[in-house]
Parts: sequence; C-alpha cells; structure tokens
Amino acid sequence: MKNPPKTPLLDTLESPHDLRALSPQKLPVIADEVRTFMINSVSKTGGHLGSGLGVVELTTALHYVFNTPHDKIIWDVGHQAYPHKILTGRKNAMHTLRQGGGLSGFTERAESPYDPFGAAHSSTSISAGLGMSVASHLQNDPKNVVAVIGDGAMSAGMAFEAMNNAGTKDQRLIVILNDNDMSIAPPVGAMSAYLSRMLSGKTWISMRNLAKNLAKKLPKSMEHLAERAEEYARTWVTGGTLFEELGFYYIGPVDGHNLDHLLPVLENVRDMPHDSPVLIHIVTEKGKGYNPAELSDHKYHGVSQFDVATGKLSKTVSNSPSFTSIFAEQLIKHAEKDEKIVAVTAAMPSGTGLDSFAKTYPTRLFDVGIAEQHAVTFAGGMACEGLKPFVAIYSTFLQRAYDQIIHDIDIQNLPVRFAIDRAGYVGADGKTHCGAFDIAYLSILPNMMIMCPSDEAELCHAIATAVDYDCGPCAFRYPRGTGMNTPLPPMGTPLTIGKGRIIKSGTDVAIISLGTRLEESLLAHDILGKQGVSVTVADARFAKPIDENMVMDLAKNHKLIVTIEEGSRNGFGASVTTLLVNNDMCQSTKIRTLTMPDEYINHDSNKNQNAMAGLDADGIVKTITKALVS
Amino acid sequence: MKNPPKTPLLDTLESPHDLRALSPQKLPVIADEVRTFMINSVSKTGGHLGSGLGVVELTTALHYVFNTPHDKIIWDVGHQAYPHKILTGRKNAMHTLRQGGGLSGFTERAESPYDPFGAAHSSTSISAGLGMSVASHLQNDPKNVVAVIGDGAMSAGMAFEAMNNAGTKDQRLIVILNDNDMSIAPPVGAMSAYLSRMLSGKTWISMRNLAKNLAKKLPKSMEHLAERAEEYARTWVTGGTLFEELGFYYIGPVDGHNLDHLLPVLENVRDMPHDSPVLIHIVTEKGKGYNPAELSDHKYHGVSQFDVATGKLSKTVSNSPSFTSIFAEQLIKHAEKDEKIVAVTAAMPSGTGLDSFAKTYPTRLFDVGIAEQHAVTFAGGMACEGLKPFVAIYSTFLQRAYDQIIHDIDIQNLPVRFAIDRAGYVGADGKTHCGAFDIAYLSILPNMMIMCPSDEAELCHAIATAVDYDCGPCAFRYPRGTGMNTPLPPMGTPLTIGKGRIIKSGTDVAIISLGTRLEESLLAHDILGKQGVSVTVADARFAKPIDENMVMDLAKNHKLIVTIEEGSRNGFGASVTTLLVNNDMCQSTKIRTLTMPDEYINHDSNKNQNAMAGLDADGIVKTITKALVS
Repeated sequence: MKNPPKTPLLDTLESPHDLRALSPQKLPVIADEVRTFMINSVSKTGGHLGSGLGVVELTTALHYVFNTPHDKIIWDVGHQAYPHKILTGRKNAMHTLRQGGGLSGFTERAESPYDPFGAAHSSTSISAGLGMSVASHLQNDPKNVVAVIGDGAMSAGMAFEAMNNAGTKDQRLIVILNDNDMSIAPPVGAMSAYLSRMLSGKTWISMRNLAKNLAKKLPKSMEHLAERAEEYARTWVTGGTLFEELGFYYIGPVDGHNLDHLLPVLENVRDMPHDSPVLIHIVTEKGKGYNPAELSDHKYHGVSQFDVATGKLSKTVSNSPSFTSIFAEQLIKHAEKDEKIVAVTAAMPSGTGLDSFAKTYPTRLFDVGIAEQHAVTFAGGMACEGLKPFVAIYSTFLQRAYDQIIHDIDIQNLPVRFAIDRAGYVGADGKTHCGAFDIAYLSILPNMMIMCPSDEAELCHAIATAVDYDCGPCAFRYPRGTGMNTPLPPMGTPLTIGKGRIIKSGTDVAIISLGTRLEESLLAHDILGKQGVSVTVADARFAKPIDENMVMDLAKNHKLIVTIEEGSRNGFGASVTTLLVNNDMCQSTKIRTLTMPDEYINHDSNKNQNAMAGLDADGIVKTITKALVS
Repeated sequence: MKNPPKTPLLDTLESPHDLRALSPQKLPVIADEVRTFMINSVSKTGGHLGSGLGVVELTTALHYVFNTPHDKIIWDVGHQAYPHKILTGRKNAMHTLRQGGGLSGFTERAESPYDPFGAAHSSTSISAGLGMSVASHLQNDPKNVVAVIGDGAMSAGMAFEAMNNAGTKDQRLIVILNDNDMSIAPPVGAMSAYLSRMLSGKTWISMRNLAKNLAKKLPKSMEHLAERAEEYARTWVTGGTLFEELGFYYIGPVDGHNLDHLLPVLENVRDMPHDSPVLIHIVTEKGKGYNPAELSDHKYHGVSQFDVATGKLSKTVSNSPSFTSIFAEQLIKHAEKDEKIVAVTAAMPSGTGLDSFAKTYPTRLFDVGIAEQHAVTFAGGMACEGLKPFVAIYSTFLQRAYDQIIHDIDIQNLPVRFAIDRAGYVGADGKTHCGAFDIAYLSILPNMMIMCPSDEAELCHAIATAVDYDCGPCAFRYPRGTGMNTPLPPMGTPLTIGKGRIIKSGTDVAIISLGTRLEESLLAHDILGKQGVSVTVADARFAKPIDENMVMDLAKNHKLIVTIEEGSRNGFGASVTTLLVNNDMCQSTKIRTLTMPDEYINHDSNKNQNAMAGLDADGIVKTITKALVS
C-alpha cells in the first residue's frame, strides 16, 4: 500500500474490548482514524463508501457502549458496515474486500461473531433483531439487540411489519433510525417526507444549536454530560408521533456525528430497564468527512478505485455500453412512439438505467421506493387500465415480489413487463445479490413468457417483443455489466414468441444456450471443432415457452444435447429435459444440463464465478468431452 | 331452494344502474334484502359469511354513490364481496358459489366488469387502486378508484408500501379502512392497537351518541343530511394522525352500518375536487345482522352449510383428523420435551392449528399478524439464538416471504422449520389459494431440506425429523383436509434424511410418488396389476435431497419411471429426471413426470381438481398405459 495513512491508536485495537478500555475522550481520535483508514482502503478496493462514512461515529459509539458480541448490532443492508469491520478485528483484511476469498462487502455470520445477522437486501434488521431479543428473553439470557436501519429502508413493507409487531410486544429492542435522507437514490414516499418535516421543525434547529452551545460550556466529564444529554435528547423531540403510535419510545433527532451526544443517549438507553422497543432517530450525512463524497450527488455510494487526494474515480475502460444502459435507451425510443409505455422502479432509478427515462418522460417513470411488492401490483393496476408497464428490478430483489407476480399478475394474466437486471452472477456483490433463481421461479407460472437475450442486440429485440406482447405477463433478463459489443440495431424487432435460432450447425453435439452464456458456448464450439467434435450451437432465446420443435429436432439429430443457462437448477434445462423424456427422445440421445451448482458461490469476479460453476467454455468442453466418452 | 326469502325490491335490480335509480330512502330496504338473501344463499353453499355481513350497507352505499363499473371498487382479499356480487348481476348465480363452474368465492376480473381486480390474498388493493388511478390520470379518463381494506390487512407490509407511495402523490384515490377489529383471527400489532385507541377515545363515543340523537331530530331529507353529516364526520376525528402523517386526508370514524352517515360522506368525497389520497375510516361489525354470527367467536368467517333459523353448522362427517390438527398435536408433544421449540404464525392461529399450541404454550406461539415476510425473518432471528422455530404458513401465502426464505434463512443456513399447510389443490378456494409452487420454488434453494409426507403417520415422522434437524432450514408440506385415517404413532420417529421407501415391489413400472398422491398411486398399482402390469410403488418422502440411490436403482430395474406430485412442473419430477438423464439412465427406461398442468385450475372439489390434472388413479393408469404402448 503506497503511503498508508497513519492510524496509531486504531492500530492498538484488536477488538471492541480494547476500544471499551479507552477513555471516552479518545473516541473522536478513533473515529478519525477509522475514517482515514477506510477512505484509503476503499480507494484501493472499490466498494461502498458513502454509507460507511456516515456511520463512523455511530459505529464507534455502539461498540463502546454495548458489550458486543454478546450484545448484538445488526446493520440493515450491511453495506455501511465497513467501519464495523475495521473495529471488529477485520481491519487488516480490508484490502481483500469483495475479492475472491476476501471479506464480504456485507455483514456475514460466517465471517465474524460480531456479525449476528447477514444482510445485503434491505429492511430485514428489525425482524431479525426482534427474533433475537425474544429468544434471549425466553432463554433468560438478557442482552441488548440494536438494529441500525436507514430511512430509505424504512419504506419497505417488511420494516413496517416488524415495527408493527415489535410495537405491541413488551420486549426490549433498540432500533436506530439512521436518517441521511439518501439511500441509494434520494428517498421517496410519505415516510421520508414525514422525517423531513420532523427535521425541518424550528424546535429541532434551535435546540440543536442550543445543545451545541451548552455542550461547550459544560465540564468535559462524561458523568455530567450523560445526565444532561439525555434531557436534551428528550427535549429535542419534535415529532415521533408516528413511531410512538406504533408503540415505540421515540428519542431524537440526535446528531449522529457528535460523540458527545451519541454516547450519553446510547448509555441511557442501554441502562434503562425498558421492556419495550425504543427508536433512536439519528441524523447523519452520507459521505461525511470526505470532501469529494460530501460534494458528489451519489455521495460515493458504490465506487470503483479512486484517488484519495482528488477523489477522482478510475473508470473501468470498456468499449461496450452496459446492458442496463441499452435497456434504458431502447425503452425511451419505444416510449416516444407508444404513449402507453410507463416504467416502474423500486428505489433503483440509476441502477436500472431508468433515471435517463425519467429525464425524457418525467411523468411516466414511477419510483415507488424500496417497495418491490407494491411496485409489481401497482404496475398491475396500470396494466388493468391499458397502460404498458415495464417493471425494472434486479433479479435478486424481484424475489421480494414473488407472491405479487403470481397472485396479482400471472393469475390475472395482466400484461406487465418485467425487465430483470443483474441476472446471473454479479461478481463482487456475491451470493446475496446473485440473480440465480428467476428462470426457475418464473418458468413455473402458467401465463409467464420469458426471454433471455444472448447479447445486446438480442436485448433490443426482447424489448421490442415485450412492447408488442400485450396478451399476458412477460419477463426478460440480462446480466450485470457490459456485453460483447454487438452492433446494435436502432430499435429492436419483435421476435416470434417461443422460437429459438441456430447459430452454428454441427452433427455430433447440440449446445442449447439460454442467455448470455452463448458467447462461451461459441468458444466451446471452436475448441471442440479443433478436436474433431462437430457442435451445433442454438440460442434458445425463450426460457418459456421453449422452442419444442427446435429442441426435438436437435435431439433427433445429435447424440448429445447440452443445455446451458446462468441460473439455478430446475430452470430451462429441466424444462428441456422434461420435454424430451416425456416424448421418449432420450433413448439414443444423451443430455447434460449445465446450470449453476446447487450451492451459493461467494463474491469474486464474474468470470471466476462462472468458471467455478463450470459455465465457461472450459467447463462446457469438459462436460461434453466427458459425456461423449462415458 | 326451500322457503327462499322474499326480496321483492332487490329482485327488480339487474345492475347497479337500477340501484342508482332508487330514492335513497329505499336503500335500507335493499341492504336488508341483500343481507337476508346472502344468509340464505350461503347457508346452502357454505362460504365466507361474516365479512360480507359486515359490509352490506357499505356495498350498497358504494354502488349507489359511485358510477360503477367506470368507477372502480376494489375489495381487498375479496371474500367480503358477496353483497357486491349480489348487487352486480350475479345474484341468481349465488347458488353456484365456490363450486365447479360456478361463481368464485373471491373477486375475479374474468367474472364481471364490476370486479376490476381479482383478490384473494390480502393487502393488494391500495397498490392496484393507485395503479388504476395513475393510469386514468395519465390517459385523461377521470374516475374514482375506491380500495376497501380491512384493519387486519393493514398490518401487511405491502399495504404500508402502497400508503407510503400514495401519500406523496398528487393523485386521487379513496381508501376505505373497514375496521371491524377482527380479520380471520383477532388482529395483532401496533396498527390494530392504534385503531382501537382511536375508537376508545371519549370523543368518538360521545360524538357518536350525539350524532345519533341529532340525526333523529333532523329532517329526513338527504340534502340536509349531506351537509351536516360531512361536518359530523370531520368533527369525529379523534385520531388519524398516523394516516395524516402518511399523506392521507383522514375522515372518520364513520358508522359503517348507518346509511344516513355513509352516503353523505361518500358523496362528499366523490364530489371533492381532491387530488390527493383520502382515507375514510369506517367501523363495522363482522357478522352484523345475523344473530348467530354476531354471537359466535369466529363471526361465521368461513362456514359450511348451516341452518338459518338456528345458525347450526352442518359438520362434514369425517372419521379422520385433519393434517392441520395432527401437526398441532405433534408439535405440542415435542414442545413438551424440547423447550427450544417455538411456533410462528401470520394471522392464522386457527387455520394452522397453532391456536391449540398457544393454549398449552402461550409464551411460545408468536402470531405476527398478516406479515409473512416479517414472520420468516423473525424466526430466523430466533434460530440465530438457538431456538427451534416452526413457521406454519399456507403454501400460497409463503410465496409472500420468498426473498426472506432465500436471503435470511437459506443463504445463512439457519435452522428454521417451515410447516407448509394447504399444499396442493385446495378445492373451493380455487386457484388463488392453490399450493402449487412450493416444491419447485424451495427445491432450487441450496440449503433447503424438503419433506413431503404421504399420510398422517408420515407427517408425524416429518415433524420429528424437523425437530431433530438443526443443521439448516427444512420444510414439510401437507394438504388441506383429512387423510386416509392412517393409524398414528404417539410421536413420530425421525427419518433418515434423503431416504425414500418402497411400498410395493413390481417389475415393469415404478411409480415414484411424492406426498399424499401415494394413495392414488397405490390404487393405480392395483388397477394395473389386474391388467397384468407389475408396478413398483415408492414413497420418495423427500423432495430434497432426493434418494438418488433408490431412483437410480428403480430406473435400472424398470422400463418406465413415473413421478407424481401434487405440485407444479419443474419440481420433484424435474429433479428426478435431471438426475437420471445426467447419469445416462434413460437409454432403456422411459420417464413420465406427472405434475399439475401448466395452467390454473379453478375452484372445484379437490377430487375433481386432481382428476382434471391427471393426478388421480385413473390419470396415472392412463399415463402408464399410454407410455407402455408408445
């Protein structure tokens, strides 16, 4: 590491036990060193920076006040947990962050006893925390359970369900609402507006200044501060009715960057003999303490490597546009011609490319917040009235809306279009974000039509097909990142539903590829060709309905059929196999189904993940070679 | 129909247009006749009664005030829509309710233009309504959209997501909160407590009496009442802060059985030029107007046929205990021996049998309300702390928690036990409640172990297995209703994970049955035996891991393998098939996979549904006979 920053006090800490041995006056030093170390470290690895910067003081205070790991701190979403990792024995592994074999970018139970609950999807922390708290109570093992959740994550129904349940329990639970008014995208929704109103109240502003002034005049002794600050915290209550109505004891807002305020509030809550849930509303600034982050729009939420001095982000050099951007550009073009097209996103306007759609058609993009369930059924309502909604959600997050896809869309056969981004392996974000299951869980729905474009041009055609397809629900999936720089048509052309295409004609083996594994299938074709094996390569295009004629013809004319998809078992390969066996097509034809293995693959490069899964050219060649000699 | 009740005025109405032609003074007569007709009709068909009785006046008022079907009324859950069906042209088909080819027990788009959105799962109405409202606005086709949702359904996260989104939109939308303080089970959670506080406030009580007294003194003319009642409604506001904070204009509470109050409030809301969402809080009584229902604990929520005069319910005669009750009894026995066992239900203590568990272990049953997402992750939190949580949720509702099962339980390999009731076809509740997909959507999860007991004794063994299995998540599924009255062991014995069993040994065909289709498989065995076909029948016991050795052995020794499961495609049959083809076991062995067909099957008897699916003995025999000659 060039010019590693000096963090002399932090270097003396091996665990939070050491932190708790320090005098409170040392904590601002620790916080500064954590911040400096993290900025430097993430500048070399890339990762989530802004959220972590916002909770440096909170993290320090939590581990100082609470007896971790016996007491539990649950970081909602988990991407703000870098300061937590640095303080809980993982500082010296931070350079391996999000790399194969290295630290996860999220919290993970297997990684540390200080991570009581793994999280990468949002809004799970209160539920998990309540469960732990109830369990500790039932087992007479008293402990504090602290769930730290952002204001954006509060919009998800799951968080409400948990609050609603916790609010009637005589159960100790501490929820810290980390209000930075900025999750991944600027938050939307009434909850966010409510929080803003609370903060904009004059009471808060003036009391805040008053508190600051008072704090200066008070003796530095924490004993005194403790008493007073609790009073301040309660006096600052300018809102909180909503949380009080939900059964929580509300404290706040508290300045989340001021340890003199945070520590006594947390200590008092810890020492209160409370048997009911408490919500501490803290206010932080995303990107706090790193000027380039504070000044940027995205607050360095998720970044590549960057130069610490200037904040300049290193761009990954790519000549290809991302699948995401192609989706957005194409949808804008179609929307120009078809007024019925509208788009829905669940707090991911930038990640799904729909921020550009919103610039052109601001009234036709609906960002509903972190609320996938609502997003889907809301789109269903629009479809009922004749609009053509495109719901763009990552594969892994669409799992949140599975019942809505079934009950509200598929059973009613409503023409909602699902644009499924981040399908397949996702690299550094790892197993929690892996788009593994969508082919399987959507293929079993009777009315769902599913396209899996194999490259950028095919994505254009899939979108055009979806625009035209108005007789029921459909989905199309595409991976994270860039493709193979296929020449793009100005606009796609609608495909014939359920028709695949033959890319290479051979005689021995037929690879039926679904989606973007086509590139590796073609490489395998070339390698095998040199070995004297004649390979047909087909692009299935549709996961459902599958091209039965094409599949049956290929089975008739080849001695081995290999299906390949970047998805879980019991998806496309199972559909092909079931078709063939039920038609007695396997007597003289072997079948191999290449899918993701039945295990979770950790964060690594996308290339490595596919290699581990046997889904690259090498893996395909090996499978075919072995099958031919068996 | 013996002694059909006289409903002379109702008989003159063919549609809501006729209703709207009546003078308002006639509406109480209509409401009375609807109630009488419905009680009589449901006494003969069975079905959901209590909820419908609670909304007779509301339904009458809504169709009187709003211009349906151009204006949209969306009934959340849909089981309270019988009065709506009676008033919208379906009165004369009510005797076919929930029977094959007859009316659905829920709202359904295909059934009537007055059903703008099909619903059977709860808490979808606000999302759908907002979508319709936005679409009508975008397309310059103004209309009123009314979502009617119960207080129980309000606890679901999805409803909160929708409120949160609607609350910041300048979008016309009317939400009617039908507060009867009793969904299927007594409601739980902070929202419910909040609503109760609002109603118990002295302001509401006294104003209610005042309003009643005033109403008596006022002239009967509706014109006058209209003005005044709106004032009363606003004056009655004793709470509503929570909804106001979420961006809704709150009106209420309003007596939902008093047409003199309902009509003017609805008319005023209709005529307000509001461009923001309105919430009308009405208070109703479940079972209203039918004495036996009012007096019963369950308010005749879902009933069999009954005698109208006495209210006496006809018991379906059965010598067998239900799978549900066996589950509960066994779990209670295990809980006695193992203190770590806890149970979680999502507002279905009675439906899952866990009400009896709660009687024995009140501190170990957690009813979290209609909140499946929270239920699962809450259980995950308890599992982290060493408890053994059993989460009992119907197959169809577990879809709501799919992401939580994946992200919070399976990825972390937490030992949460899923007791999946109502697996397979569910008879009269139809396609929306069909437990079709669980085998498929759970089988693709790497760490999930899945048992499908074939009878009541096997269910006992599955429960014992789940109690012992502490190394990861597991699930066991069982159908609605009773089994074949298999003798029960006092307590089950843990099974060997992933081992099936051979029930009948034959030589020609092997049926590998998963779950309770075993009974029909054995019947098929007997029929085919008489025809000279020697059939092996295996009980797979496990959907995952499958008994690979047993399956491979059977494939070696039989010319035809038939898998059967009461579940969707790409489930167990696909797992078996994929195993066999990847091991080249199909060259001399045919395979047939019997699953539910790839279509939704409407309400009918369970027997008929399985027959339509080809999953009864007759269907099995046909499949085998055809396969053997092909």
